Amino acid sequence: MSASENNAPTTRADGRAVDQLRNVRVTRGFTTNPAGSVLVEFGDTRVMCTASVSEGVPRFKRDSGEGWLTAEYAMLPSATAERMQREAVKGKVKGRTQEISRLVGRSLRAAVDLRALGENTVNIDCDVLQADGGTRTASITGAYVALADALAVLKKRGVMPGEPLLAPVAAVSVGIVDGVACLDLPYEEDSRADVDMNVVMTEQGRFVEIQGTGENAEFSRDELSVMLDLAEGGLRELTALQRAALAADLGETVTL
Amino acid sequence: MSASENNAPTTRADGRAVDQLRNVRVTRGFTTNPAGSVLVEFGDTRVMCTASVSEGVPRFKRDSGEGWLTAEYAMLPSATAERMQREAVKGKVKGRTQEISRLVGRSLRAAVDLRALGENTVNIDCDVLQADGGTRTASITGAYVALADALAVLKKRGVMPGEPLLAPVAAVSVGIVDGVACLDLPYEEDSRADVDMNVVMTEQGRFVEIQGTGENAEFSRDELSVMLDLAEGGLRELTALQRAALAADLGETVTL
Amino acid sequence: MSASENNAPTTRADGRAVDQLRNVRVTRGFTTNPAGSVLVEFGDTRVMCTASVSEGVPRFKRDSGEGWLTAEYAMLPSATAERMQREAVKGKVKGRTQEISRLVGRSLRAAVDLRALGENTVNIDCDVLQADGGTRTASITGAYVALADALAVLKKRGVMPGEPLLAPVAAVSVGIVDGVACLDLPYEEDSRADVDMNVVMTEQGRFVEIQGTGENAEFSRDELSVMLDLAEGGLRELTALQRAALAADLGETVTL
Amino acid sequence: MSASENNAPTTRADGRAVDQLRNVRVTRGFTTNPAGSVLVEFGDTRVMCTASVSEGVPRFKRDSGEGWLTAEYAMLPSATAERMQREAVKGKVKGRTQEISRLVGRSLRAAVDLRALGENTVNIDCDVLQADGGTRTASITGAYVALADALAVLKKRGVMPGEPLLAPVAAVSVGIVDGVACLDLPYEEDSRADVDMNVVMTEQGRFVEIQGTGENAEFSRDELSVMLDLAEGGLRELTALQRAALAADLGETVTL
Amino acid sequence: MSASENNAPTTRADGRAVDQLRNVRVTRGFTTNPAGSVLVEFGDTRVMCTASVSEGVPRFKRDSGEGWLTAEYAMLPSATAERMQREAVKGKVKGRTQEISRLVGRSLRAAVDLRALGENTVNIDCDVLQADGGTRTASITGAYVALADALAVLKKRGVMPGEPLLAPVAAVSVGIVDGVACLDLPYEEDSRADVDMNVVMTEQGRFVEIQGTGENAEFSRDELSVMLDLAEGGLRELTALQRAALAADLGETVTL
Amino acid sequence: MSASENNAPTTRADGRAVDQLRNVRVTRGFTTNPAGSVLVEFGDTRVMCTASVSEGVPRFKRDSGEGWLTAEYAMLPSATAERMQREAVKGKVKGRTQEISRLVGRSLRAAVDLRALGENTVNIDCDVLQADGGTRTASITGAYVALADALAVLKKRGVMPGEPLLAPVAAVSVGIVDGVACLDLPYEEDSRADVDMNVVMTEQGRFVEIQGTGENAEFSRDELSVMLDLAEGGLRELTALQRAALAADLGETVTL
Repeated sequence: MSASENNAPTTRADGRAVDQLRNVRVTRGFTTNPAGSVLVEFGDTRVMCTASVSEGVPRFKRDSGEGWLTAEYAMLPSATAERMQREAVKGKVKGRTQEISRLVGRSLRAAVDLRALGENTVNIDCDVLQADGGTRTASITGAYVALADALAVLKKRGVMPGEPLLAPVAAVSVGIVDGVACLDLPYEEDSRADVDMNVVMTEQGRFVEIQGTGENAEFSRDELSVMLDLAEGGLRELTALQRAALAADLGETVTL
Repeated sequence: MSASENNAPTTRADGRAVDQLRNVRVTRGFTTNPAGSVLVEFGDTRVMCTASVSEGVPRFKRDSGEGWLTAEYAMLPSATAERMQREAVKGKVKGRTQEISRLVGRSLRAAVDLRALGENTVNIDCDVLQADGGTRTASITGAYVALADALAVLKKRGVMPGEPLLAPVAAVSVGIVDGVACLDLPYEEDSRADVDMNVVMTEQGRFVEIQGTGENAEFSRDELSVMLDLAEGGLRELTALQRAALAADLGETVTL
Repeated sequence: MSASENNAPTTRADGRAVDQLRNVRVTRGFTTNPAGSVLVEFGDTRVMCTASVSEGVPRFKRDSGEGWLTAEYAMLPSATAERMQREAVKGKVKGRTQEISRLVGRSLRAAVDLRALGENTVNIDCDVLQADGGTRTASITGAYVALADALAVLKKRGVMPGEPLLAPVAAVSVGIVDGVACLDLPYEEDSRADVDMNVVMTEQGRFVEIQGTGENAEFSRDELSVMLDLAEGGLRELTALQRAALAADLGETVTL
Repeated sequence: MSASENNAPTTRADGRAVDQLRNVRVTRGFTTNPAGSVLVEFGDTRVMCTASVSEGVPRFKRDSGEGWLTAEYAMLPSATAERMQREAVKGKVKGRTQEISRLVGRSLRAAVDLRALGENTVNIDCDVLQADGGTRTASITGAYVALADALAVLKKRGVMPGEPLLAPVAAVSVGIVDGVACLDLPYEEDSRADVDMNVVMTEQGRFVEIQGTGENAEFSRDELSVMLDLAEGGLRELTALQRAALAADLGETVTL
Repeated sequence: MSASENNAPTTRADGRAVDQLRNVRVTRGFTTNPAGSVLVEFGDTRVMCTASVSEGVPRFKRDSGEGWLTAEYAMLPSATAERMQREAVKGKVKGRTQEISRLVGRSLRAAVDLRALGENTVNIDCDVLQADGGTRTASITGAYVALADALAVLKKRGVMPGEPLLAPVAAVSVGIVDGVACLDLPYEEDSRADVDMNVVMTEQGRFVEIQGTGENAEFSRDELSVMLDLAEGGLRELTALQRAALAADLGETVTL
Repeated sequence: MSASENNAPTTRADGRAVDQLRNVRVTRGFTTNPAGSVLVEFGDTRVMCTASVSEGVPRFKRDSGEGWLTAEYAMLPSATAERMQREAVKGKVKGRTQEISRLVGRSLRAAVDLRALGENTVNIDCDVLQADGGTRTASITGAYVALADALAVLKKRGVMPGEPLLAPVAAVSVGIVDGVACLDLPYEEDSRADVDMNVVMTEQGRFVEIQGTGENAEFSRDELSVMLDLAEGGLRELTALQRAALAADLGETVTL
C-alpha cells in the first residue's frame, strides 16, 4: 500500500496550500476563574485551555522539591458532527481521551522546569467546544499560553523557588491525503488520510514528541521527511503566535 | 431560625436592586455542529446550551408515536473558583449533576409537544464554561432557545408530524440573603443565602417547577410569596429576551 | 395545559377525602442494631428508617466543632409492583435515588443543631420495603423519629456538648389529580397526577423544602396555594404523630 | 491446630443445647408486590425473601424450553452491629455478597424443575433486615417458601407447562466453637468459631451443598461427621417448618 | 435425582483410573520478579502462581503484630476453549473470580503463622494461562510452593520475627461423573458432573475447606464418604510433590 | 536540553552493542485453546500473545463485507519488579494499557487485509508474564505470528473469502541513553533514557507507526535519523525471525 507520490504545493478543499496553517486564533483571559484561560482556534476547531494552580504535589512527588503538571483533555458531547455520549455518564474515559490527555501532559511538562516550580501543581484542562480535526495539537498549542499565565500568577504569590517557564512548545498535525503531504488537517482531510502524524516541538526546533500512524497505508522514510519539513514550518509560525499572544492584552484575540 | 424581615428594594454587593436581573446575554449559533447552539450568560455565569436531534426514540418510547427530550448538565472542571475533579475521570456523576440534568429535562419537556415531535429525540446539553451562581436557571433559559433552533432544523428535514414548539419556558433563582429576598443570586449571595429557590415558568405565567430549600433557615408562607413575586417579574423579562433572541440573527448577541 | 379546577372535598379511589392522610403508622425499635430504628407506614408504603451514630466527622467538617448528618435512601428491588434492578448490581446509583437521598439529608439537618451535636456523625438510612407512593415523604417523617432515638443514645454516652434535637420535621406529598388537589398520593394517583409536590415543614409551620413539579401540566399560583393549604393540614397531624411515637414504648405501633 | 474434643450436649451462651435451633419463624405474605414474599427469622436474624416472576428467560436459556431461577442476597447497611457502607454507593458488590447470591441461586435451583417451569424466570431476593449470624442459611430456608408461593402464582396464570416445585430445600449452619460442635450459630459464636460449615439439604436428606471452612483451625473427618449429624437433625425440623408455613394462611407466623 | 451407584475403579476418557491424578508438574522460579514464582500444571491446566512480599500490613491489621496474606485468582481471556471477555475491560470482577480468590486466600492462610510473619504482607497471584478443569485446586497447590519461596526471601531480609511457614496445604477436586466418583476432574468431566467437590487439606490430613455442590443431582452421605476417600489419596500425593519441588533446584520441573 | 552526542558502537550494561537486539525467542503453540498462541521473549521480557477467531463482526462493521481485528494488552500484576495492582480489581483500565492496546491493534491491522478476511473477527491478546522493557514491541512482534496461525485455522474452516495475511509487521524500541542511541532497551535503560521511541514496520521497510517521546530531553532531527537507522536494522532481523518461526514446528523455540 503506497502513499504519497508528489508533494508539489497544490490547493486543498478549503483553498489552502499544502504548507499552510488554518486561521489560528488565540484569546487569553477567556474565563476568569482559572489562573490561565485561553480559547484557541485552529479554523473551526475551538478548544478552551485552562491552567489551574494549587500548592502541594501528588503523593509520588511529595518531598521531591519538584512540582508537577498534569493534563486532562475532553470533548463536549456536542463538539462533533454527530453528538457523542458523555464519558461521565458512561462512567468510563475512552482510550482515545486518556491517550491525548497523557500526550498533552508530557508535552507541557517539556515547557516547565519542575524544580524551579517547587512543590506546586498545575492542572491543564483542554475542553473541546467544537471539533474539526487537530484538537490535540490545538490543545497543546493553547495550553502553553494558559500555562504561562498560570505561572505568572504563582510567581505573584511568591510561592515558587525559581522561574519554571521554558520556551514555547507547540504542536501541529501533518498527514498524507490523496498521496500529498499536507499541514494542519481539518476533519474532512484527517478522516480520509493515509497517514496521520502529530508533531510537538520546542521553539528551538527540537522534537518533544512525534506520533505517526499509517492507518490506511504505510509510509516511507522519504515521506516522513517531507511531513517533518511541513511540520517544522508550521510550528515556527505557531510558536511566534504564542509569543505574540503573551505580549498582547488579556481578552484580545491574536491571529496569524 | 427566622429568615427575611423586609423586602424593601435595597442595593446589593453588585449594585443591583433586589428585583433586578444580572446582565443577561443570549447568543445563538455559538457553535455549528449541533442543530441548536446557544451561549447564555447571566452575569459571569456562562453556559453553552446545545440541542442535538436524532431520528428514533429510546426503547421506552418506541412505537408510542411520541418523541422524547432528554438533557445533560455538566460543569467544566475549571468553571468554578476552585478547580473541581472531572466526573468522567472519577467515573461517577455527582448527585447534584444528575439532579440538575433531570430538572433541565423536565423543564424543557414542558416546552415541547412530544406527539407533534413524532418519533424523534432531542438531546439538550448544558455545559457550564464559567460558574457564578444560577447555572441551572441559565441552562434552562438558554436551552429553550437552542431547542427552538433544533426543532426548526427538524422541521426543514420534514420528519415531524406537527409543530412541537410551545411557548417559552424560562427559569430564575430567588433567595433570602441577609433577611432580604433577592432575584437572580450570584455565587457570593447564593453561598450565604438562608433560602434558595429556583422557579421555572412558562410565558403564560404558570409554574413548571418550584424548588425552594431552606439550608440555613426555614421560610414562612409570606416569605415564599415575596420570593414568587420577584421570580415572576424576572421571568417575564427572560421570556421576552428569549423571544428577542429567536428573532435576531445567528451569531448576534441579544441582551436585556 | 390547565390543571385543577375545583377543590371541593370529594371521595377518592381509596375512599379518602382530598384532605385526608392515609393510615399512617410508626413503630420504634423495629430492629435493634442501629441507635434508632423505625418502621413507618403511609398506607401500603412501608419504609425502614434507621439512624446510626459514630464519633468523628467527615473530612470537610473536621475541627469545625460541628457534627454532621447524612442520609441514604434506597428501594429494595422487590418493593415495587414490577421488580427493579438492584443498583449495587448495576454499579450505579440512579439519579432519582441520589436526589431523594440528598432531600432526606437536607430535611433532617433542619432538625438538628450541628454545633450542639459536636463532632459526631449521624447516618440516616431509609430503605423502602414496599412502595405505594410517597416513599420520600414517609422516609423523612419516619427518619425524624429514628434520629431522636439515636441522639438519645449519643446523649447517654455523654459525647455531645449540647442538646441537638430540634422540633419535629415531617413531609407529605400533595398533587393535582383529575383537576383536584389531593393530599398524600398513593402510587395510583401519583402516576397520573398533573402536578406533584412534596412539602417538608417544621412543627412551627415553616418550610424546609418545597418541590413542585408539573410533569403533565403546569400550575397556577392559586393552585399552588390550595396545595400548600392541604399540605399544612396533613403536616400538623404528622408532627403530632411523631411526638406521640416518641412518647410511646419501643416496639409499640402508634397510628393517627 | 486441633479443634473439637467432645460433643456432649452442653449449654450455650443463649441457653440452647448444642443440637438445638434458634427460635425460627416464617411469615408468608410479608409484602404484597412480589409473587412470593416471606419474612424469615432465625433468632435475631431477620431476612425478607421474595420471589418475583417474569415471562421469558435470559439470553443463555432462550429457546431451551427451560426456565431459569436467579438470586440476589444483600444486607441493608444498618443490619449489622456496626453500620456497613452501602454497596450501591460504593459501586461494587463485595465478594462475600456475590458468593452468597450464587449459593442461594444454586440451592434454590435444586428445588425447581426448570423444564416444568417453561421459559419463565424467577428472581429471588434475600434482603437482610437484621443480621445475627446464619443469614445465608435463613435466606435459603425462607426463599424456598417464597418460591413456592411464586410458582403458585405462575400456575394460576397458566403459563407453565408442568409442576416445577420440588420438595423443600433448607439450610443451616454448624460449627465448632470452643471445641464443641454446635448447630445454628448466632454471630457471637460464629465470629469465634474454629470451623464454620453451611449445609443445604433436600427434604429427602440428600446434600445440595456443603461448605466447610476452617478459618482458625482445621478439622478432622470425625469432626466433620459430628457436624453433619447435627445439621441433618436441624434440617429435618426446618423442612417440616417450611411445609407448615405453606399450609398456613398468608400473614400468619409459623414457628418451630 | 440419584447420583453415584458404584465406585469400582474404571477407566476414564483419558485412560486414568478413578483414583488417579492427572500428570502434575511443578516448576519453581518460573519468573524472576516476584519473591516466589511457580508454574503448576494439572494435565492441561496451567497456572502461574506467584507470591509477592511487602513490608507493612493493610489497615485492619495495623499494630496487631501480625502479618497478612491475600490472594487474587484470574483467568487470562484466552485460557478457555472459547475466549472470555477481560474483566478489567468489563470493569467488573465476576462473582466466580472473587469466590475463588477468597478460597485461595483462606486456604493459604492455613499454611502460614501470621504472628511469626510479623507485620509483612504476602500477595498471592494465581493467573490461569490455560484452563482444563481444576484451576482453583491447581492454584492452591502451586501457590503453597510460591509462598514457601517468598517466605524464604523475607527470612533472608531478616524482617520476620519467627518461622511462619506451616506444613503443606494442597487441594484437589473430586466429583461424581456418570454415577462414578472420580478424582481430579478435567473440564470434559467437570462440565457434565452431577456433583463437584473441592477439598483443601493439610499434610496432616486435616480439612481446611470442603466445598461440595450438587448442580445436577444431590448426593448422599455415602457418596460424600467415597469422594472424601478419593480426595485424601490424591492429596497425600500432592503434598509429597510440594515437598519434592521445594527440595529441587529453581527452574527444575518436578512431577508425580 | 540536548541529548545524544555520538553513536559509535559502545558496549552496554548487558554487554550488547548499541545496534544489537537482545536474545529474542519465539515459541508457537504455547497454549492450545486459542487459534494462535505464541510465547515471545525479548531478553527477560516474556509475553504470551494469542489470536482467537470468531465468526461475525462488531456492530460498526456489520454488512461491510470486511472483517475486524482488535487487540488487548495487559500486564500480570506480578510481571514487574514491584507488584502492580490488578486493573480488574481496581475496576479501571489504565491509560497506558489502553494506549498500548490501541497501538497493538492498529499495528496488526496493517498485517491483515480486512476484506479478504470476510466478516470474521480476530481478537489479539498480549499478556505480559514478565516485564523488562519493550513489552509493547515484543507484543506486536509475537502477535503477528499468532495472527498467522489463527488465519490458517480460519482458512481450514473455509469461512474466509480470500487470503488476508499480509507480510510480517514487527516492532522494536530505540532510545537515547546517556547520550547514545541504542536499540531494544531493557527496563534498566528505558527508565533513564532521555528519548524513547517505538517503531513498527512492515517487512518491506515501510513505517506503520512511529512514536518518539522526549520525556527528559528533546531530540534533534539528526538524532531521530540515527534512531531510525538502528530500528530498521533490528526490524529486518525480527521479520526474518517471524518468518523462521512460522516455518518451524509448533512447540519449537526459534531464536535469532
